[in-house]
Amino acid sequence: MKPIKVGILGLGTVGGGTVNVLKRNAAEIERRIGRELIITRASAKDLTKSRICNTDGIELTSNPNDIINDPDIDIVLELIGGAGPVKDMVLAAINNGKHVVTANKSLIALHGNEIFTAASAKGVIVAFEAAVAGGIPIIKAIREGLSGNRIQWLAGIINGTGNFILTEMRDKGRDFADVLAEAQALGYAEADPTFDVEGIDAAHKLTILAAIAFGIPLQFDKVYTEGITGITRTDVEYAEQLGYRIKHLGIARQMPNGIELRVHPTLIPERRLIANVNGVMNAVVVKGDAVGPSLYYGAGAGAEPTASAVVADVVDVARALTSDPENRVPHLAFQANQLANIPVVSSNSFRTAYYLRLMAEDKPGVLADVTRILADHDISIEAIIQKEPSSGDTAVPIILLTQITLEQEMNAAIAEIEALTTVTGKINRIRMETLG
Amino acid sequence: MKPIKVGILGLGTVGGGTVNVLKRNAAEIERRIGRELIITRASAKDLTKSRICNTDGIELTSNPNDIINDPDIDIVLELIGGAGPVKDMVLAAINNGKHVVTANKSLIALHGNEIFTAASAKGVIVAFEAAVAGGIPIIKAIREGLSGNRIQWLAGIINGTGNFILTEMRDKGRDFADVLAEAQALGYAEADPTFDVEGIDAAHKLTILAAIAFGIPLQFDKVYTEGITGITRTDVEYAEQLGYRIKHLGIARQMPNGIELRVHPTLIPERRLIANVNGVMNAVVVKGDAVGPSLYYGAGAGAEPTASAVVADVVDVARALTSDPENRVPHLAFQANQLANIPVVSSNSFRTAYYLRLMAEDKPGVLADVTRILADHDISIEAIIQKEPSSGDTAVPIILLTQITLEQEMNAAIAEIEALTTVTGKINRIRMETLG
Repeated sequence: MKPIKVGILGLGTVGGGTVNVLKRNAAEIERRIGRELIITRASAKDLTKSRICNTDGIELTSNPNDIINDPDIDIVLELIGGAGPVKDMVLAAINNGKHVVTANKSLIALHGNEIFTAASAKGVIVAFEAAVAGGIPIIKAIREGLSGNRIQWLAGIINGTGNFILTEMRDKGRDFADVLAEAQALGYAEADPTFDVEGIDAAHKLTILAAIAFGIPLQFDKVYTEGITGITRTDVEYAEQLGYRIKHLGIARQMPNGIELRVHPTLIPERRLIANVNGVMNAVVVKGDAVGPSLYYGAGAGAEPTASAVVADVVDVARALTSDPENRVPHLAFQANQLANIPVVSSNSFRTAYYLRLMAEDKPGVLADVTRILADHDISIEAIIQKEPSSGDTAVPIILLTQITLEQEMNAAIAEIEALTTVTGKINRIRMETLG
Repeated sequence: MKPIKVGILGLGTVGGGTVNVLKRNAAEIERRIGRELIITRASAKDLTKSRICNTDGIELTSNPNDIINDPDIDIVLELIGGAGPVKDMVLAAINNGKHVVTANKSLIALHGNEIFTAASAKGVIVAFEAAVAGGIPIIKAIREGLSGNRIQWLAGIINGTGNFILTEMRDKGRDFADVLAEAQALGYAEADPTFDVEGIDAAHKLTILAAIAFGIPLQFDKVYTEGITGITRTDVEYAEQLGYRIKHLGIARQMPNGIELRVHPTLIPERRLIANVNGVMNAVVVKGDAVGPSLYYGAGAGAEPTASAVVADVVDVARALTSDPENRVPHLAFQANQLANIPVVSSNSFRTAYYLRLMAEDKPGVLADVTRILADHDISIEAIIQKEPSSGDTAVPIILLTQITLEQEMNAAIAEIEALTTVTGKINRIRMETLG
C-alpha cells in the first residue's frame, strides 16, 4: 500500500517532538498500521532557527499554505498552538479534504463546534488527543474506553504548572510567588503565567473533557474559573494538618439541575490517589455509572509526551482512512445531532463542602457569631479549629470545614461573617471534594 | 439504520452485569453509535436460576448454538469464562462470520493466537478489553492510546483478590491465611483460590498485556509466576519500615537480551502512585519511550466494571462493522505478520534488586559471612538492618536490601548463605522495583 503522507504546521516544542517520535519509531509504527507513514513537508515561521528535531528528508517551508494545499498530503498536523490564524488554517485544510490532528486546546475549546461541523460536512476527522493532559490518552479513554457508561463526574489535574507550584508550596513550605518565579526559570511556566495560574488553560481542557463526557457542545464561556494565586502556604499547611491536599482541579459534574463546570483550587483527602499526583504530572479521575471511579495519570506537557498523543491520533486517522465517515468515533463522543442541550449551572448553584480560614479577635462570643451565621444559612460544620495567634498578633486564625452546601448560601454567609466587627479582613474560602 | 443485534453466552456475574448496563444505558449508547443496539438472545446453562439482570425481551436458551448459529446476530458476547468448551464456541461463532467480544483472560492467554488467526481469516474482530483489569480501558490505552511509543516496560496490579489480601495484611497487621478466609467469605476469592493467590490469573493477564505492548505472540507458558502465599505479615511490616509496600505485580520488560515476563510479590517505594492502590482495585503503569510513565487505575473485577469494558468493545465493534478489515486495530496491536520473535528470558537472567530476610545467630562474624558471599556474587548491598530477636529466641532477623543484580547470582548466593551453620532456615526473598 502506498505510504501515508503527513504535513506538519509548526516545528516548535510539540512539532519538533512529533518529528522526533515519528522518525525514531517509524518502523514500530509501520508494524502497527501496516503502511509506511512519512512526513513530507513541515512549516515554520523562521526557517533559520535551530530546532530540537532533525528535519532531514522533510521539505521545509515558511508558508503553511504549501502544506494545506498540497494534494499529496493526507493528514495535516496543526502544532502551532494558540488562537489567531491557526483556526483559518485548520478550516482550510478541512476544506481541502484533509484530516487534521491538533494539540491546540484553546482552538478546540473556543472554535471546536465550528471546526467539527466543517469536518463532518467534508467527511474528515479532526483529532485532538494531545489537547488535554498531554500524553495521557484521556480523550480516547472517555470517548471510547468508557462508552458503555453514563459519566457522572470527572475531576482532573490538567495544568502541570499549577500542580508544580502547589506541590512545591507543600513539600518545601514555599510561597506562591517564589515558586512561580522558579517555574518560569525552569521553563514550566510562560513569561505571562496568566493562562496557567488563573486557570484559563485548565478551563480550555475542562471544556473539552466535559463535552465528550456528557455529549454537550463546547462551552468555554460557561466554565467557572478560579486560579491558584489566592492560595497561601498557610492554607497548604492547614489543609495538610487536616489530612487534605490542595490541588487545582477542573471538575465537570452532572447534577439534577444541569452540569457544573468549574476550575478552582480544591481540598482533597490525602488518601485519594489524585491527591498524590505531584510536580508537573497530570491525572484525571472519571466516574462512570458502570465502571465506578477510574484514574488516568501521566505527563501533561513536554515535547515527547505531547507527541505521543499526536502520533496516536495520526495512527487512528491512518486506520480510519478507509472507514465509513458515518460510522467513526464522533468528534465529541456522541453523534453530532445527538448533542444534548443540558444547562450549565451558575456558580451560585454549585454544591460543595468548604474550607474557610478567617482571622478573628480572640474573645468570647466570636465563634458563636460565626457558627450562628452559618447555621442561619443551613450550613453544617464538619470541624472547627482555632489556631494560636502569631506572636504580637491579637487576631487568631480560625479554620472551618463545612459539609456540602449551596454556594449561594455560602456567599451570603461569608458576606455576613466578614461584616462582623470581630472578624478581620477577608475570609479565604477553598472548595472541598471527597472524589469518592 | 437497522439495529445491531447482540447475542450473549453466559448470564452469570459478567453476563448479567452486561445485560444491565446495555439496557440501562441503551439511549446513551444509541446517542454514541447512531444505531440501536439490542440483545436478541442469551444463553445460560440453567434457565431456572435467579439472575442479577432483567431478561425481558431477550430470548433465552440453554443451547449456545442457538446464538452462535443465529444468522441475525452480528456480535456474540462470550461471557461464560474459563477454558474448556468455550474455545470451540468462539471458533464456531468466528466461523459463522460473527464478531466476538469476550471477557475471558484464560481463553485469550492460552488460545488467543489460534483464535485471532481464525478471526483474521474471516475478517471479524475478537475484542477482549474486559479480559484484563476489568473496567480499566488498558488494552485500548496500550494498543491505541500509546501507539506512537516503543513500550519499555509495564507493571500492574492485575489481580484484585491478591491486592485485597496484601492491603489487609498491611493495614491491619493480619496474617495471609486469615485474610484469605475473609476474602473467600466476601466473595472476592474463589473457593479454590489457587488462580488468584498463586499468580496464575495475573499471569494470564500479563501474557495479554505483554503481547500488545511488544507485538509478540501470546506465550503464557513462558511467564515466570510466583504467588503471594509466601508473604508474611513480618515482611509487610519490615517493608513498611523501610519505606516500601509489597504489591503482587505482573511485570513485562524489554531488556537487551529479550523480554522479561514475571508475576511475583514486589517491594515498591511507597511514594509511587501504584504503591497506594489498595483493596480490590487494579492499576497498570506503562512506560513508553515518548510518553514516559503513565498509569491507569480502576476496578479490576465485578459485574458492572467488567460490563463497562464489554460494552465499550461492543461499541467499538459496532463502529467497525463498516470498516475495512485490513485497516482495523490489529488484535495484538501490531499487524499479524509483524509479530516479533523476541526471546522471553528465563528467570535466571532477570535483573532486579532484592529484599532478603534471614534468621541468623546473634554473634560476631555472621554479617561478615553473609556480606562476603554477596560480594563474591557481585551483589551490592543497599541497606542492612538487624532487628531485635523475639523474646526467648537466639536467632535475630536480618534484613538486606540489595542493588540490581542478576537472579542467577542471587540464587547462588542464597544457597550459600542458607548453608552457613549460623543461618537458620530459609531466606525469604522478595524482588524490588523502583518503577521510576
